[in-house]
Amino acid sequence: MVSDKQQRATEGEKLEIVRHSAAHVLAEAVQSIFPDVKFGIGPAIENGFYYDFELPRSLTPDDLPLIEAKMREIIASNVPFIGQEATKGEARALFAAQPYKLELIDEIPDEKVGLYRQGSFLDLCRGPHVSSAGEIKAFKLVSIAGAYWRGDEHRPMLQRVYGVAFDTEEALAEYLRKLDEAAKRDHRKLGRELDLFSIHEEAGPGLVHWHPKGAGIRRVIEDFWKDEHIKRGYDLIYTPHIAKLDLWKTSGHWEFYRDYLYSPMEVEGQEYIIKPMNCLGHILIYKTSQRSYRELPLRYAELGTVYRYERSGVLHGLSRVRGFTQDDAHIFCRFDQLEDEVVGVLDLALFMVDTFGFTNYQVLLSTRPESYAGTIQAWDEATETLSRALVRQKLAYNIDPGEGVFYGPKIDIKFEDAQGRGWQGPTIQVDFNLPQRFDVAYIGEDGQEHLVAMVHRTVLGSMERFLASLIEHYGGAFPVWLAPVQAMVIPVADRHLDYARKLEDELKGEGVRVVVDARSETVNLKIRQAQLDKIPYMLVVGDREVAESTVSVRLRSGEQLASLPFDGFKESIREAIVNRVKELRL
Amino acid sequence: MVSDKQQRATEGEKLEIVRHSAAHVLAEAVQSIFPDVKFGIGPAIENGFYYDFELPRSLTPDDLPLIEAKMREIIASNVPFIGQEATKGEARALFAAQPYKLELIDEIPDEKVGLYRQGSFLDLCRGPHVSSAGEIKAFKLVSIAGAYWRGDEHRPMLQRVYGVAFDTEEALAEYLRKLDEAAKRDHRKLGRELDLFSIHEEAGPGLVHWHPKGAGIRRVIEDFWKDEHIKRGYDLIYTPHIAKLDLWKTSGHWEFYRDYLYSPMEVEGQEYIIKPMNCLGHILIYKTSQRSYRELPLRYAELGTVYRYERSGVLHGLSRVRGFTQDDAHIFCRFDQLEDEVVGVLDLALFMVDTFGFTNYQVLLSTRPESYAGTIQAWDEATETLSRALVRQKLAYNIDPGEGVFYGPKIDIKFEDAQGRGWQGPTIQVDFNLPQRFDVAYIGEDGQEHLVAMVHRTVLGSMERFLASLIEHYGGAFPVWLAPVQAMVIPVADRHLDYARKLEDELKGEGVRVVVDARSETVNLKIRQAQLDKIPYMLVVGDREVAESTVSVRLRSGEQLASLPFDGFKESIREAIVNRVKELRL
Repeated sequence: MVSDKQQRATEGEKLEIVRHSAAHVLAEAVQSIFPDVKFGIGPAIENGFYYDFELPRSLTPDDLPLIEAKMREIIASNVPFIGQEATKGEARALFAAQPYKLELIDEIPDEKVGLYRQGSFLDLCRGPHVSSAGEIKAFKLVSIAGAYWRGDEHRPMLQRVYGVAFDTEEALAEYLRKLDEAAKRDHRKLGRELDLFSIHEEAGPGLVHWHPKGAGIRRVIEDFWKDEHIKRGYDLIYTPHIAKLDLWKTSGHWEFYRDYLYSPMEVEGQEYIIKPMNCLGHILIYKTSQRSYRELPLRYAELGTVYRYERSGVLHGLSRVRGFTQDDAHIFCRFDQLEDEVVGVLDLALFMVDTFGFTNYQVLLSTRPESYAGTIQAWDEATETLSRALVRQKLAYNIDPGEGVFYGPKIDIKFEDAQGRGWQGPTIQVDFNLPQRFDVAYIGEDGQEHLVAMVHRTVLGSMERFLASLIEHYGGAFPVWLAPVQAMVIPVADRHLDYARKLEDELKGEGVRVVVDARSETVNLKIRQAQLDKIPYMLVVGDREVAESTVSVRLRSGEQLASLPFDGFKESIREAIVNRVKELRL
Repeated sequence: MVSDKQQRATEGEKLEIVRHSAAHVLAEAVQSIFPDVKFGIGPAIENGFYYDFELPRSLTPDDLPLIEAKMREIIASNVPFIGQEATKGEARALFAAQPYKLELIDEIPDEKVGLYRQGSFLDLCRGPHVSSAGEIKAFKLVSIAGAYWRGDEHRPMLQRVYGVAFDTEEALAEYLRKLDEAAKRDHRKLGRELDLFSIHEEAGPGLVHWHPKGAGIRRVIEDFWKDEHIKRGYDLIYTPHIAKLDLWKTSGHWEFYRDYLYSPMEVEGQEYIIKPMNCLGHILIYKTSQRSYRELPLRYAELGTVYRYERSGVLHGLSRVRGFTQDDAHIFCRFDQLEDEVVGVLDLALFMVDTFGFTNYQVLLSTRPESYAGTIQAWDEATETLSRALVRQKLAYNIDPGEGVFYGPKIDIKFEDAQGRGWQGPTIQVDFNLPQRFDVAYIGEDGQEHLVAMVHRTVLGSMERFLASLIEHYGGAFPVWLAPVQAMVIPVADRHLDYARKLEDELKGEGVRVVVDARSETVNLKIRQAQLDKIPYMLVVGDREVAESTVSVRLRSGEQLASLPFDGFKESIREAIVNRVKELRL
C-alpha cells in the first residue's frame, strides 16, 4: 500500500525512494551470492545508493557484473516491497545473525522498529520504498570502496558497493557519460599526465610539490592576482609561517580550531605552531603604529601558505590538502566604510572568477549561529551591510541561516565548472572577535579609540584548490594566458632549426612561453606529443615557412590553420595573452 | 724594558698592544670609582678593546664620560706598565678577592703565571703592553653591554664596557665618523623609520613581518630574480614547508644539522619538521620520472622559506634571523656539464649583484675538510672544476683550505657595501652526499644509471639578509627601480588636485609607484616628509605646472630641477626603472 507520504513525494523524492530500494535489491543480490554476509547500512545518496557489507572475501571489480545480473533478475521478477512494524524483541530475534543490525536496533529510542522485506531479504528500515522492484528502471553498480563501520576507524572495515540509479536509461547514460568525462578531467590524473604537481608519501600526504609546469601556471595566477590587488588599493605583505603558541591562545584559535592545528614545536623553552591562518601576522603589522581614521581602510594582502590537519582519509589531490596557499587579505576599516569595502571585494572577486572563465555562481549569506562573539546588534548591522553590498552588486543570493562563523556573518560564492560541479570560491567574513581580543583600533575623528571593522577574505580560496578547479574546468586545456607552454615550434628537418630558434627568441622577447621541439622525431609524433601536452599552438616550420617568413599553425584542438606571416601570429598570441582571452583562436 | 717581541711588532700589532693596554687603564679607572669591582677579562678587539666587570650597580651611558676622564688622568700621569711572573700560589693570594681571576688561574697549565701592573691596578696577564700609559694616544669609550661570564648563559651576567683606540686623534675621528654613518644606515633603524618591516616578541624573535613598503621592494627583487632565472633556463617550483622527519634522517640533516632544526611536530603518529633547506623537495620532484642524459641539466629554482634555530642572543635585525626566504636553486647535471653550469651561475650571480649596485667582491674557494662524503678523487675533480670556472669568469679568488662543507667543495662570494663592510653573497656548493643517499640518477648515453652532479646555489642568499645589505648600502635611499614609492606628487593647493590625480593615473599606467600627498599641509612640510621617506622624485604642481602641463621636480637629495614637460619626466622615470639605473638623475 502506498502511504500518504509517498503520494506527496516530489519527483526528486521519488527518485530517492527508487535509489533506496535499489540498495535493498543490491543487498538481496549479495546475500544470494554470499549467504553469510553481515549487513551494515544501505542508504540513497546523490545520484544513487550504496550498501555496506562484511563478506568472507574482498570484492573485485569483476564481481560487479555478477551482482548486477542478480539484481536485474530480482527487478525482472517485480518482487513486492512490504513494510511492517515489529517490537525490538521481535527484531532482535529476526536479526540474531546480524551484529551490525543488532547494534542499530539497540540505539532506536522507540519500542517499535520498522522492517522492510522484498523476496528473501529483510532489512531494518522505515522506508519508504517502491511498491515492487520493477519500479527500479535504470541502475548501474560503479565502484567498491572500504568504509569503517559508522565511519569510526576503530571499528571493522566493511566493503561498500556504490551504484547509481535514474528514472530512465537515457538519464543514466547521460550521467555515466558525465562521470566518464569527469574521470578524464580528474585533476589528479591530468596533474600527472601534464606533469603539473606531485604528492609524496615520503614527504607526507596532502603536501603539494609544484612541478615547473604547475608552478608556471601558479606564477601567472599569482602575478595577475598581485597586480589586480595593487590596482585596487591593497598592500602586499609577507608574514612568517610560525608564531608562538601564546599568540594563538590569545586569538582563540587554540581553543576553537585545535583539531586542525599541528602539535607545537619548542624553541628555547617557548612553544610555537605552524600557522593555520594569516590573520595574526596582519594584525601585528597593523598594530605597529597608531592608526588614524584618515588612514583607513588598510587592505593587507598575502599569498600566505598555511598548514591545517586533515585526516588522511579525506585528503584528495589538490582539492583537500594539508598545506595550502591562501590568496588572503584582511581589510581594517571603519564600520561606516564596511559596505563600500564589501562591494569592492565582490567586484574584485567576480572580476577574477570571470577572468578565469567561470560564469555561474551561487551566493550564500550566512547568518548568526547559536554561539557567537559580539553583540546581536553588531551582527544584525553587519549582516544588513553584507546584504546591501550584495544588492548593490545585483547579486541574487540565498540566506544560509545560522551558518556564519562564530566570529561574524559571511558571504560565500560557489562557482560552477564546465561540468556543472560546484567549487568553493570567494569568501568574505566579518570578524567581531579578533579586533576585541587584540585591541585592533584606530583614533576616530572624535579623538577617541574605536575598534576597527575587520574583514577576512579570499578570492580564489587557495592556489591548490583553485588549480584543481581550473584543471577540471578546462580538462587541462588551459586558455593561452595560463598555459604553461603556450607555443611549440616544430621544425620539419634539421635545416629549419635556425629559423625555429629565431621564432623562439622573438616570441620569448614578447614574453611568450615557447619551446622548440628539436628532437630527431617525425613531425607527426611531435604534433601528437604537443597535443597530449595540450599546448595551444603548434608552429610547424619547413622550407616554405622559412622562405616566406610564415608559420603553419595547428591548434591543440587538431584544427589546421592556413600558413600566416609570423609577425601576424606573434601579434595575435601576444594579444590573446595580454587580454586573457578564454577561447583558442587566431 | 721593551721585549724582543715588542720590537718585532708590526704597526698592526703595536696598535693591538695599545688597545690591550687601554683595557687595563679602563679597569684601573673603574676600580678607582668602584673599589669593590670584580674583574672578568679585558682583551683588545677589532678597532678597540673591552673589559668585563661585576659592579654593585648597572652602568649607564652617563657613566662613560666619568670613567673616560679618569682614564685620561691615568694616561696623563704616564704610569709605567710592569710585567712580572708569579707562582700560582702567589697569584691566588694576590687575587683572593677576585673570583673570576681565581677561576682563570686554576685553568692555567703552567706553574708560573704572568702579571701586569700599572699604578694601583694589577692584572693576570701575559702582555705584551705599552711601556707606559702615555703611549695610548687616542681612545674613546663607546658602549656598555651585558655579557655572560665566559659566554655561558648559566654563569653570571657581567657588564662589558667597549672602547675604541687608534694611533692618532685623526684616525679615531675618522673611525667614529664611520661608526656614526653606520649607525645612521643601520637597517634596523632605517627599517623602522621607513616602515619596511618589524619583528615581534609576541610572535617570536627572528621572525620577520614585511610591511607594505618592505614587501614592495621584495616583490621587485623577486620578480627580477624570477624573470632572470627563467631567461637563463631555470624552472621555478614550489615545495612545502614541512616534511616527514624520516626524510631528513635519510638525507643526513637530522644527524648533521640537528642543532639548527626545530623540534618535530606529530601528525597521525608521524613526525614532521619544518624545513631548514629546500633540497629534499627538489630531489623528490626530480625523481618523479626517470631522467635521460638528454634532459640534463635541470635547474630548479625556488624562493623557499626555511626555518633554522639560532640562539636569541645572536639574532640581529634582518641579517640574522630564524626564518628566511632563500633564493635557492638546485642544478642536476652530468659531471661533464658541471663546469659550464658553474660558469653560468657565476655569470648570473655577478650580473645580479652588480645590478643591485655592489661592485666589490671577494671570492673564496673552499676545499675538502677533514671529514667528508664522497671520494678524494671526486673532491679533487670537482674542486678543479670550480677553479676552472672561476678562471673562465676571470675572477681572482683565494683558497680557503678545508673550509668546504662535508658534502662538497664550494665557492663563496662576499660583496662589500658602500661602507666597505662585507656581506655573505652568492654561494655555489657541489654535493656528493644527497645524490647518493637518494639515488638521484639519470640514464646515460650508455644506457646505464649514473648519479647526477648536484649543485646547491643561492645568488642573493636570503631576501631578509639581502634587504639588510641593500638598506645599509644605500642608507635607505634606494635606486628608483627598487624604491617602494618612486614619486610623490605634491599639489600646491586644492585646486591643483585634479591635475595631480591625472599625473598619478598616467604614471600608474606606466607601472610607476606613485602617491599624491593630498593632505592640507604646506608644500614645505610635504617635501620634508617625502625627503625623510627617501622618495626619489617629488613633483610639485601649482598654477604654472597645470597651465603648461609641466612638473616642478625636486630630488630627494634636495636638488631642485627646472620645470619640465610632464611627458618628458614620465619617459625619464620609466627609462630609469626599466634599465634599473643606480644613480638618481633625470
